[in-house]
Amino acid sequence: MEARIEVGILGATGMVGQHFVRFMENHPWFDVKWLGASDRSAGKKYRDATKWHLAGVMPEKVEDIIVEECKPGNAPRLLFSSLDSAVATDIERAFAQAGHVVVSNSKNHRMERDVPLLVLEVNADHLKLIPGQQRSRGWKGQIVTNPNCATVSLVMGLAPLKTFGITQVIASTMQAISGAGYPGVPSMDINANVIPFIGGEEEKMEQETQKILGDFAGDHIRSLAAKVSAHCNRVPVVDGHLVTISVALSSKPGLTDLLHAFETFDGVPQQRRLPSAPAKPVSYMPQNDRPQPRQDAERERGMAAYVGRLRACPVLDYKFVALTHNTIRGAAGGAVLNAELMHSEGMLD
Amino acid sequence: MEARIEVGILGATGMVGQHFVRFMENHPWFDVKWLGASDRSAGKKYRDATKWHLAGVMPEKVEDIIVEECKPGNAPRLLFSSLDSAVATDIERAFAQAGHVVVSNSKNHRMERDVPLLVLEVNADHLKLIPGQQRSRGWKGQIVTNPNCATVSLVMGLAPLKTFGITQVIASTMQAISGAGYPGVPSMDINANVIPFIGGEEEKMEQETQKILGDFAGDHIRSLAAKVSAHCNRVPVVDGHLVTISVALSSKPGLTDLLHAFETFDGVPQQRRLPSAPAKPVSYMPQNDRPQPRQDAERERGMAAYVGRLRACPVLDYKFVALTHNTIRGAAGGAVLNAELMHSEGMLD
Amino acid sequence: MEARIEVGILGATGMVGQHFVRFMENHPWFDVKWLGASDRSAGKKYRDATKWHLAGVMPEKVEDIIVEECKPGNAPRLLFSSLDSAVATDIERAFAQAGHVVVSNSKNHRMERDVPLLVLEVNADHLKLIPGQQRSRGWKGQIVTNPNCATVSLVMGLAPLKTFGITQVIASTMQAISGAGYPGVPSMDINANVIPFIGGEEEKMEQETQKILGDFAGDHIRSLAAKVSAHCNRVPVVDGHLVTISVALSSKPGLTDLLHAFETFDGVPQQRRLPSAPAKPVSYMPQNDRPQPRQDAERERGMAAYVGRLRACPVLDYKFVALTHNTIRGAAGGAVLNAELMHSEGMLD
Amino acid sequence: MEARIEVGILGATGMVGQHFVRFMENHPWFDVKWLGASDRSAGKKYRDATKWHLAGVMPEKVEDIIVEECKPGNAPRLLFSSLDSAVATDIERAFAQAGHVVVSNSKNHRMERDVPLLVLEVNADHLKLIPGQQRSRGWKGQIVTNPNCATVSLVMGLAPLKTFGITQVIASTMQAISGAGYPGVPSMDINANVIPFIGGEEEKMEQETQKILGDFAGDHIRSLAAKVSAHCNRVPVVDGHLVTISVALSSKPGLTDLLHAFETFDGVPQQRRLPSAPAKPVSYMPQNDRPQPRQDAERERGMAAYVGRLRACPVLDYKFVALTHNTIRGAAGGAVLNAELMHSEGMLD
Repeated sequence: MEARIEVGILGATGMVGQHFVRFMENHPWFDVKWLGASDRSAGKKYRDATKWHLAGVMPEKVEDIIVEECKPGNAPRLLFSSLDSAVATDIERAFAQAGHVVVSNSKNHRMERDVPLLVLEVNADHLKLIPGQQRSRGWKGQIVTNPNCATVSLVMGLAPLKTFGITQVIASTMQAISGAGYPGVPSMDINANVIPFIGGEEEKMEQETQKILGDFAGDHIRSLAAKVSAHCNRVPVVDGHLVTISVALSSKPGLTDLLHAFETFDGVPQQRRLPSAPAKPVSYMPQNDRPQPRQDAERERGMAAYVGRLRACPVLDYKFVALTHNTIRGAAGGAVLNAELMHSEGMLD
Repeated sequence: MEARIEVGILGATGMVGQHFVRFMENHPWFDVKWLGASDRSAGKKYRDATKWHLAGVMPEKVEDIIVEECKPGNAPRLLFSSLDSAVATDIERAFAQAGHVVVSNSKNHRMERDVPLLVLEVNADHLKLIPGQQRSRGWKGQIVTNPNCATVSLVMGLAPLKTFGITQVIASTMQAISGAGYPGVPSMDINANVIPFIGGEEEKMEQETQKILGDFAGDHIRSLAAKVSAHCNRVPVVDGHLVTISVALSSKPGLTDLLHAFETFDGVPQQRRLPSAPAKPVSYMPQNDRPQPRQDAERERGMAAYVGRLRACPVLDYKFVALTHNTIRGAAGGAVLNAELMHSEGMLD
Repeated sequence: MEARIEVGILGATGMVGQHFVRFMENHPWFDVKWLGASDRSAGKKYRDATKWHLAGVMPEKVEDIIVEECKPGNAPRLLFSSLDSAVATDIERAFAQAGHVVVSNSKNHRMERDVPLLVLEVNADHLKLIPGQQRSRGWKGQIVTNPNCATVSLVMGLAPLKTFGITQVIASTMQAISGAGYPGVPSMDINANVIPFIGGEEEKMEQETQKILGDFAGDHIRSLAAKVSAHCNRVPVVDGHLVTISVALSSKPGLTDLLHAFETFDGVPQQRRLPSAPAKPVSYMPQNDRPQPRQDAERERGMAAYVGRLRACPVLDYKFVALTHNTIRGAAGGAVLNAELMHSEGMLD
Repeated sequence: MEARIEVGILGATGMVGQHFVRFMENHPWFDVKWLGASDRSAGKKYRDATKWHLAGVMPEKVEDIIVEECKPGNAPRLLFSSLDSAVATDIERAFAQAGHVVVSNSKNHRMERDVPLLVLEVNADHLKLIPGQQRSRGWKGQIVTNPNCATVSLVMGLAPLKTFGITQVIASTMQAISGAGYPGVPSMDINANVIPFIGGEEEKMEQETQKILGDFAGDHIRSLAAKVSAHCNRVPVVDGHLVTISVALSSKPGLTDLLHAFETFDGVPQQRRLPSAPAKPVSYMPQNDRPQPRQDAERERGMAAYVGRLRACPVLDYKFVALTHNTIRGAAGGAVLNAELMHSEGMLD
């Protein structure tokens, strides 16, 4: 058996940090050995520094790890980051500068010109930005990012349709409370209610989608020229971001063409048989009332997207719904998948 | 004080029927004296025939009314109908034939050529269809209808914008469970979940919106030529249908033009000071996270629409959200308002 | 019309403070003219200092009131307090010292020997503690308190049974999220979940119940000698604390005796026809599945208690359920009722 | 590898039937090959006869099984029953008569004198009733039962304390909606609400608990002489019945004695290493706010009980909370465990 790779987590005590811990609990390649958090937590055992928010209890193997400050030093080369955006810019850069591979779920570097923003089934080739990133910044390390969790639901749903020439997208989300972290959304705000606003989310969905679906162009990504409009809403659901999508397609395919595209869609993670890759990245559900967050988000370990209800749109060309697990595929799991590809490509050697 | 008008309810034991009872509990003009329901209930006291589903308990004044079969005879001239669609067509026609004014919340006659489908702030003039309806059908009575509850949220939000030339609309709803009646949606289906499908709802929203926003053209309504696309979703909210709306407007107004239109919008119910008319039919909320169903649906006795978050749409021209109370303005209250206008116009004399 | 009494609110920006504002929006006697809060808010308009959490929007009449620091000075004589327990002790005492009548919802002084802890239908005579309180503390003003919100549900349910000699009580609560204030319970903790713990709540319920049901004994209250055991749980309900109660009664009454006691129970607020008194303080519901929080808590403006399901208990004597609106009768409304009695008794003159 | 045992399910299309299917999807001993349901379903493929209500989708291996009528004939010897109580009595008896081993989750035979009502960690020896049952009824087959789902939460929590002499129990439940099957509880009844009543549930909890904790006495079970009082409530939780418990114990143990009893509790399923046995049948959680249904019910595949918050009760001796997954340990999983023990005992040979 090959040697396991030691990894660390920046921002390990927060909710996404906990998801990283749990997602890699039995990972075949990655072994969580280093946990970084704020000064307030540093020096404490992880179990004392952390109020565990996920189902069940904290995995035993990390309970006694002493939390470190988020400074390069004894940290492993590969680091997953779920740092708060207030501090992520500087800390992630410092680690990349010091030679670490930072696989980040934070928003800070996503839209920078030389930083890959990855949904691997769509744009694994955006990793080609890395040599330029290292060169221009003088880094031995690197930063790669994964998108906002609502963007992931939209992009996974659109990915199989890219081939038809996406020109216009209107998306309306129904997002789970876990997307806001912890303590996140007060129950008084969301119990039996909908909040039709999530700060900064619509802009992220619109811009990130264009970048992810864009093309590698040497030293940057040429964004997809599609117009994208997002309505973001919070609903009282625990996990899983559901999105209704209307889309215009330049090649004017037939409905069966789209169904075929959904059913046969495949990507690099599947071809490389990465450990966290779902067997099918996108599954079309023929039932007329699916996908649903509580029924479908956790299938395939939370790593797959589910789409359904494909039909003609009277305004644009087609409409359908898409669902992805926001804290797994849309956060920790997506980042781990990114690192798996980088490892299989030899980028971690 | 003028004499009160006796009214009846067809389908009185169901959930919308109960809303009719409660909404008119202290009505200044209308006095609920007659309750019709299925054979199964006929002959029983209302309190014995009905499991009360609304907050609180059944109003005392109707408890001992003996439920009647839904056949013309001793029923009052003015009847509100919340009959099940399986039986509404024949029963409502029989009553109209027999000289009754049927103000219906059922879907059966809404799209018929000579039947007004009313949201009074928008299309009170569609009542002009009535003489033709009576003539062509040989009725002394008449049928008027109000729209599907989700349509009402959309139309109330769009109504102030009609003046700008609506050409395209994409709407995505988050609809309350009360919209499905009782027993309606099983809790196992909707607790902490979203169901991205409501049977027949999207078609109703698309077609009814075009009719309501259309123009009276002698013996029929010329539908608005706008394209309308609806995504309908059920969310775990008790009352209030929230809709995200993207809209294209032919006159290309500025954002302040739209805000002004929302703020100054007024309609026939307000001008006639009808008892159930909200002071302002549509209120624009400046907060960035409103309207919300649990906070806003019940304001103004559930009779007003609330809109918010107006901003540019990267695909169509503008986007915003709208909210209306689905079982009040979107059902029983809307129908009562229709009858109030008909009374004030002398149409019930 | 008699002159209205100006009143103030200590802790006006918090959630219970907002309930005070709304509850007295159209009060016939009390006019909210003064709003006190922390230094952070002082000097701002109430609308700028406060994120409004209650349904609807902030009442217009208070929007422009400038928030004051919580120091005696220009404040009205009658003050309602919803101060945070971290600061309530000193501030409330300072106001009482300075001659103010402090009607407090805070927990700090509830269990002090000379402070009335009031549920008026049960123990209005505990107001007789006031002269002694003023004498021993050298105050011209005074402090009266109302109980913890869960205590109120239990005590209102038990009150009609006091006459039978309560000796043992086991209560298990299902408490609404609004009881925890704002931001209160994170939605991630309570969505589709139950939390079987509320810090300090069980001790409060056990001790406060004994004091409230106790007897005035000159300079203190002789607590009821009953044993009381509470299990406190948080459930995903917005308003209304439901309690299951098993009770042992020394006089061994029959079930019809208890029903009669519930039905005929009456108290000082009803006899004095206080403006906020519910017509019936406790209503027994004969339906087998009531009371329920969402259906019954808001009846009678949230000021009444509802009980149901009275039956024999195989361990103690009887068991039943009780419900009270936690933020109205269990907080702001209960305190206002206390002040109404004090006013009608001339204690505010 | 030993030959797998073919099993069937009576009432396979209902919600508990679906749980049987899913729970045994990868079972090492039992292979679901036969599915029985009502005439309405018989003759159809399982996938056409069944609306799948559980998370995810129907297991492929059962999709094409043709549903049979519930009549002995070609059914396997071992049958799990989740028949509706309206029909369970006759059908289960007919199968037992015909030589089948009926492991039933239905309530019909639970309280019969010669029928084991099993929670294996507590009363595996009650299987000794079987020879007498067969003799007196003239059956070659047999019926064993598992308890009501709320009873299981209570009994699993009490089981480790039996040794201390349980004399009085007051339990108040907060039960998940899945306990009511499908369509079960209408969302209009339970969304953001509590229903303080579940028909027949309290009687079942009180009587079944006494039988399960009772002792085998030759041809019947001598019920435990403890007094048991239950308050049953429905809360908006998907899975997991939480119970608050006050208990009196004749031997007056200390609190550490109880903690020790919880921690060391063990049973026959653990000793026999049955495939579905949880490693620890009862786990005491030291956190002050656990167990919680959404966080803990699904741990250990839903087969373990979790207890917490042990403390003195001012009325009885101790109080604590207990949680079990109602549709797994409290229904399908519990029944499968029963069959596993019967197999390991050679009772299925």
